Amino acid sequence: MSLSTTNNKQLIEQYVRIRAYTESLCAPLNTEDYIPQPVHFASPPKWHLAHTSWFFEELFLKIYSQHYQEFDAHFSFLFNSYYNALGNRIMRENRGSITRPTVEHVYAYRKYVDQHMIDYLSNEVCNPEIQDILLLGLNHEQQHQELLLTDLKHTFGHNPIFPVYKENGALTESKNKHQNFVDIQEGIYTIGHDGTGFSYDNEHGQHQVFLHEYSIANFLVDNGSYMEFIEDKGYETASLWHDEGWTFVQKEGIQAPLYWTQLDGVWKQYTLGGLIDVSKESILSHISFYEAWAFAEWKGMRLATEFEWEVAADSLDWGQRWEWTNSAYLPYPGFKKAGGAIGEYNGKFMINQMVLRGGSAATSPDHGRATYRNFFHPHYRWQYTGIRLAK
Amino acid sequence: MSLSTTNNKQLIEQYVRIRAYTESLCAPLNTEDYIPQPVHFASPPKWHLAHTSWFFEELFLKIYSQHYQEFDAHFSFLFNSYYNALGNRIMRENRGSITRPTVEHVYAYRKYVDQHMIDYLSNEVCNPEIQDILLLGLNHEQQHQELLLTDLKHTFGHNPIFPVYKENGALTESKNKHQNFVDIQEGIYTIGHDGTGFSYDNEHGQHQVFLHEYSIANFLVDNGSYMEFIEDKGYETASLWHDEGWTFVQKEGIQAPLYWTQLDGVWKQYTLGGLIDVSKESILSHISFYEAWAFAEWKGMRLATEFEWEVAADSLDWGQRWEWTNSAYLPYPGFKKAGGAIGEYNGKFMINQMVLRGGSAATSPDHGRATYRNFFHPHYRWQYTGIRLAK
Amino acid sequence: MSLSTTNNKQLIEQYVRIRAYTESLCAPLNTEDYIPQPVHFASPPKWHLAHTSWFFEELFLKIYSQHYQEFDAHFSFLFNSYYNALGNRIMRENRGSITRPTVEHVYAYRKYVDQHMIDYLSNEVCNPEIQDILLLGLNHEQQHQELLLTDLKHTFGHNPIFPVYKENGALTESKNKHQNFVDIQEGIYTIGHDGTGFSYDNEHGQHQVFLHEYSIANFLVDNGSYMEFIEDKGYETASLWHDEGWTFVQKEGIQAPLYWTQLDGVWKQYTLGGLIDVSKESILSHISFYEAWAFAEWKGMRLATEFEWEVAADSLDWGQRWEWTNSAYLPYPGFKKAGGAIGEYNGKFMINQMVLRGGSAATSPDHGRATYRNFFHPHYRWQYTGIRLAK
Amino acid sequence: MSLSTTNNKQLIEQYVRIRAYTESLCAPLNTEDYIPQPVHFASPPKWHLAHTSWFFEELFLKIYSQHYQEFDAHFSFLFNSYYNALGNRIMRENRGSITRPTVEHVYAYRKYVDQHMIDYLSNEVCNPEIQDILLLGLNHEQQHQELLLTDLKHTFGHNPIFPVYKENGALTESKNKHQNFVDIQEGIYTIGHDGTGFSYDNEHGQHQVFLHEYSIANFLVDNGSYMEFIEDKGYETASLWHDEGWTFVQKEGIQAPLYWTQLDGVWKQYTLGGLIDVSKESILSHISFYEAWAFAEWKGMRLATEFEWEVAADSLDWGQRWEWTNSAYLPYPGFKKAGGAIGEYNGKFMINQMVLRGGSAATSPDHGRATYRNFFHPHYRWQYTGIRLAK
Repeated sequence: MSLSTTNNKQLIEQYVRIRAYTESLCAPLNTEDYIPQPVHFASPPKWHLAHTSWFFEELFLKIYSQHYQEFDAHFSFLFNSYYNALGNRIMRENRGSITRPTVEHVYAYRKYVDQHMIDYLSNEVCNPEIQDILLLGLNHEQQHQELLLTDLKHTFGHNPIFPVYKENGALTESKNKHQNFVDIQEGIYTIGHDGTGFSYDNEHGQHQVFLHEYSIANFLVDNGSYMEFIEDKGYETASLWHDEGWTFVQKEGIQAPLYWTQLDGVWKQYTLGGLIDVSKESILSHISFYEAWAFAEWKGMRLATEFEWEVAADSLDWGQRWEWTNSAYLPYPGFKKAGGAIGEYNGKFMINQMVLRGGSAATSPDHGRATYRNFFHPHYRWQYTGIRLAK
Repeated sequence: MSLSTTNNKQLIEQYVRIRAYTESLCAPLNTEDYIPQPVHFASPPKWHLAHTSWFFEELFLKIYSQHYQEFDAHFSFLFNSYYNALGNRIMRENRGSITRPTVEHVYAYRKYVDQHMIDYLSNEVCNPEIQDILLLGLNHEQQHQELLLTDLKHTFGHNPIFPVYKENGALTESKNKHQNFVDIQEGIYTIGHDGTGFSYDNEHGQHQVFLHEYSIANFLVDNGSYMEFIEDKGYETASLWHDEGWTFVQKEGIQAPLYWTQLDGVWKQYTLGGLIDVSKESILSHISFYEAWAFAEWKGMRLATEFEWEVAADSLDWGQRWEWTNSAYLPYPGFKKAGGAIGEYNGKFMINQMVLRGGSAATSPDHGRATYRNFFHPHYRWQYTGIRLAK
Repeated sequence: MSLSTTNNKQLIEQYVRIRAYTESLCAPLNTEDYIPQPVHFASPPKWHLAHTSWFFEELFLKIYSQHYQEFDAHFSFLFNSYYNALGNRIMRENRGSITRPTVEHVYAYRKYVDQHMIDYLSNEVCNPEIQDILLLGLNHEQQHQELLLTDLKHTFGHNPIFPVYKENGALTESKNKHQNFVDIQEGIYTIGHDGTGFSYDNEHGQHQVFLHEYSIANFLVDNGSYMEFIEDKGYETASLWHDEGWTFVQKEGIQAPLYWTQLDGVWKQYTLGGLIDVSKESILSHISFYEAWAFAEWKGMRLATEFEWEVAADSLDWGQRWEWTNSAYLPYPGFKKAGGAIGEYNGKFMINQMVLRGGSAATSPDHGRATYRNFFHPHYRWQYTGIRLAK
Repeated sequence: MSLSTTNNKQLIEQYVRIRAYTESLCAPLNTEDYIPQPVHFASPPKWHLAHTSWFFEELFLKIYSQHYQEFDAHFSFLFNSYYNALGNRIMRENRGSITRPTVEHVYAYRKYVDQHMIDYLSNEVCNPEIQDILLLGLNHEQQHQELLLTDLKHTFGHNPIFPVYKENGALTESKNKHQNFVDIQEGIYTIGHDGTGFSYDNEHGQHQVFLHEYSIANFLVDNGSYMEFIEDKGYETASLWHDEGWTFVQKEGIQAPLYWTQLDGVWKQYTLGGLIDVSKESILSHISFYEAWAFAEWKGMRLATEFEWEVAADSLDWGQRWEWTNSAYLPYPGFKKAGGAIGEYNGKFMINQMVLRGGSAATSPDHGRATYRNFFHPHYRWQYTGIRLAK
């Protein structure tokens, strides 16, 4: 069930639970681990902790809570992510050099914000607008929970000593329960969120689409199938690739999923549980859209569109990987950006990105839903991304 | 009318006419003008002349014409564009340094290929497959005719003495005949080419789409309206832009359409007819997708999707500019790449590009049609691109 | 007095003192501060702590101490800097993402190495070769002490909240004691180290040079003089600059020394003691060679060569800034690289770098001498660099 | 003999001869060949033709010739190379896109300038200042004659069909006449030009240097010796290289001199006479300073300094290759840049470049002399550069 409520007590319970979950993810970390930003598209754990709190301070407390005193005047600048409407922010690629405020101070910040949020929710009536921004903040926090894990994996996975985040914490070991294809008939279908419970603006605007008949796999590509693709020289066969995908794998020297490495002829993969053997039966992870598409070409099939995915969702087993679709991330009919900072949440990214559907083993509990539209540039591989075939 | 025929005499006539038209475009050139490649995405006139001939030699004569002797063994390598299936090719960005073969030798190549093509067409029965590849070659040549002009404009437009290609050859002076919006009702519509006459593979696969009600302008944005956008600080207002668009204009220092420059407070534009005043009534040209989208935001409207465009096409006046749509360039249902080199024509570019519809003042006669899907990366500005609003 | 001795007790005393000094420099740090590498040419404090210990483990204990067990098999790889002879090493630009081993573990490493070094020095006779490598290790440690401060300053100085490393720890407040020029007569002079006490291989090979008459300032350029250069549009006057210097300041947008910023018309500078006013009487710091050279041009003077500097050294007051000379870093006559890893210490950097003489307020006690040849690329500004004029 | 005279008739003769020589170098070119700029550090033949004329127009005729009318107002902008004092200039990397003015028009420009120069020299008394600038212009033209050949070789050498500039025009076939070393005694020597005849400002300021005893080869490294270096894995042995040199060859994938390529196990080299076998006895060419230095390391010797070279010059056979020295390009004692544009000729390049001495097979007749200081960045390989060993 997605987050949603109309009752302050429930709101407080959700708020406390989700905020605590973020901190629980950090429990295995040393202070050192909170700092680095290994690549420009990832962020340090400290930053995730602070930025999610900044969201509640900047977009909730400063607006709705009378007499609220900001925790630290610098934080507005330091922990803004990409909201131009809210003034200057630190360049995205410099987040890993900000050692002060300390981790301890950031936890104090969280505590301070939490106390004021709980005070507010305990004492004030929340109208729907206020509830909406609160739920947005909590969903935002859940998104950063997943990013915190994937970004940390990037840092650890590029450390030559391969640190273990958590024993048995691999997140990559799930297997398929089914092996069949689901057939969907031609017709007019409804797409988008129905307005019950929380959803992002990019899911809004329920509308009709016409779909031709298609079949969609009720399983995700597993590591064994992908090894066959590698062995069949998939990475060396230009005709399987987009022109840009071919350039990408050639230039970057990519010959396997991210985190895979071959030692003495055996495929190993770095996971948050450490370096382990790649299991053939486990579901493939950490591939770019380009690789997903090339694999489908090699199989003589294709990726589903996001609409085909959503229509079939009830018949599918999903939630282990973010599944690349062959749909570009574009607005639904009638999409309208909100004004101000909230309007920057999704709309301004609707170019050059592909939609992913489903959710992954790293996605926070209760965060996914069938209408959810995730999106990334086609060359990114550090999320738990996978492949579902269609034909 | 698009190119299409079933009769060899007509084929020869078309072939001769289209090939001659390419050369007529080069009539105003000096030998020097045939050489430079100003940027990696453009090509020299000499290369266009040779590459279009290479197409007929490599994909027609070598395959269908018995005993054909290739003109020069080096040309297969030198004038391949991007067909991986046909072996190595010169790096795209090095085309401007290839002074030999000479221009004269390239014209001899054209003559040689033409002679063999005409001989073939005069003496052989062309089955539909052979006709198809011939028509593809002629349409390919027409595409390069337009590129020849836009690439040349890039070279001349960045020369500080602003050479004149042809007196009165501006190609930017057309004006709108209408100022109204066309309303289209909700419903299921058919998209794609019906198979009568020539079309590219990316138009194939007629299929149904469901469209909600919309209105689409029967005019293109003119220079005067765009000047208002500039004066209203459109280029300095982050909220109007995609995140990547904002980065693009900031980083490149873009503050006006390509080829515009302000001298003593007056907007001038470089055209193939030389440097002229920007006329407010003339239709805007040479803007990126990002600028088109930001302009629409500023107007409180949006760009049409390619489906909305195609459905309304019969009611619209079009063909002055390539019109950016808000559709990503993706395959139609059932799209299947052909095998071999021909399969590389369109399919492998279906990522990170946006669809443009219509055609421009530089598009060759008889080359456009309502189902035509042109595509470019969203930051490109050197084509005759324009904006049609929808709401 | 430079480090040097022939007596094990003194060696132990020196070893203990210098190793302890490194750790004392880290006393004001939080765990977080040990991690980031703000730019590729700087390194994290943790890395400096480990790498200097690695030097003793790899180049001393593993070679001379029988039965020595290495502390951790990974460290040889993780904390090698640039010694190709000693196998693979982590890419220089990735040092800031290595959160494990922890800071605590690195301190344990230091302790372990120290214990074994002291055991060795307490029980073994050190022949001259062994003494030499020990002294090299201690001088190496002192070099990293200075880098630890300058690298940390880079991290803190680019943090928008400008953390204070140590109250009153600015290191930039020294003033000139003299204002005169020293005249040196034409003649043959001896250059290079005489072999008494420690020196680096790049100082070896005493040799003669012939110098023409010259005058050299017995003071360094102060902030006030440099402000005049700025106000006189020094940064906008192409004729004062090397061609590459001009490109550098234009491209990087440089208009003042590193760490200077103008707030409300007042020049401020970030120091390790926090953000303070720029004092006109204090000695200028943090300028590139290009700026030093342009300033001298503007003054109608020049920078001294490293030979002119060394010959005059006894008559000069020096040791507040690393002084850019107009000498390229090249070998002395008869210079010969040692074999193996030690040979990589200096010789392989003798291209595209300029010599700096003197020493700075951040240089460790007893580390400088008149024959010392420091060297950096001409665009670097993060060391405590200054300007001495000659004519 | 270097250019120099005090007599107008001789001046005219020199002027006519040198200007004609430039055009004779272009005799084998087609119009197409005049246009491309293959890399940012090279220039098109058309540009060389125009720029050398621009020098006489801008720095001679406009200043000394009353009533002179400039040929074309655009040329001042188009054909300035790097003289900031003379206003804006076209970006260096865009020279290859300037197709207009045509080649014919540039020849007309040369003719016009020549006519006015000859008129002036026929009718006016030339004082020493005027003679100096004339001689500078002629020496400047000779420098560009060599660059014209090396730049053209870069264009042709990267064309897959390897055009022949001139039959038997290889310029790389010379062999050593000697195989001995010359011994020079320790002492004070005089360096720099004595003022008789023409010289550049960077040779001025005769001064004394003290040199220790040394031996210098009276031969240049030949191709056979360099093949041994390659076969002995010179390009794979890090210890032979500067740190930056090692990075350079690794990153660029360099494994042989420029223009060498191995076909079926045989070394071939592109020359202006076409693709030919590499002759073991011929003198090596087209190597970077890094390669020269690594080769000397491998031989257990070193490169000479520019002073050692100049002192020994009378005893050496030189003039086949520009010989990399181990001296950085720095000012002589007392060096003073001239004011205005002339002052930009040499001085502003005195950073990050190495001195080359001698002259090459492509150097114009009468252009070299023993005090001549050529200079290039250490990674450049497109000049006819070679190696002379010292010890």
